[in-house]
Amino acid sequence: MSSRKALPQPDREEIRVDAVLQALGEPVRLTIVRALADAPDGIACGEIELPVSASTRAHHLRILREAGVISTNTDGTRRISTLRRADLETLYPGLLPGVLAAKR
Amino acid sequence: MSSRKALPQPDREEIRVDAVLQALGEPVRLTIVRALADAPDGIACGEIELPVSASTRAHHLRILREAGVISTNTDGTRRISTLRRADLETLYPGLLPGVLAAKR
Repeated sequence: MSSRKALPQPDREEIRVDAVLQALGEPVRLTIVRALADAPDGIACGEIELPVSASTRAHHLRILREAGVISTNTDGTRRISTLRRADLETLYPGLLPGVLAAKR
Repeated sequence: MSSRKALPQPDREEIRVDAVLQALGEPVRLTIVRALADAPDGIACGEIELPVSASTRAHHLRILREAGVISTNTDGTRRISTLRRADLETLYPGLLPGVLAAKR
């Protein structure tokens, strides 16, 4: 029996472009999004190297999740996040690839 | 003799993606960007219908200009703004079309 559980997130049709843009428009959150873009199977976001405290990291992950940019599943004590690429590409074709094309 | 003058804006290589995303991620500013997207020759932004005061409008226009999203030229007492489509498309291919594809 699996203990996998998805944390709350907006359905595709509830995602709002201003919330997505606000979520993406912050350097730490962009670093998280870039890391997830390289990990289609998702990663435990604690593993991404970030210059912030654990609580700030959790805050940024929550903003990304609530905006509809990422999905997070708990698996026991681990939280695995993935980018919602298909949802974003359906709603805003080109937006995410354009953001990822930006020089760092 | 023309009195046309460009207001200060970042050069293309100075534009930062987080600033662009922050500038775009606000409903009034998105309304401005959508209006400019339909007006390749630019518009006097006072003419865009917005539910805000003149000073708030000026604030939003300034944020868009300083982020590198729009250019503004003064022409006598008029200020004509245009989207910096070519610059944005070169830096972040797909980003602006993706944003403009969003349902309102």
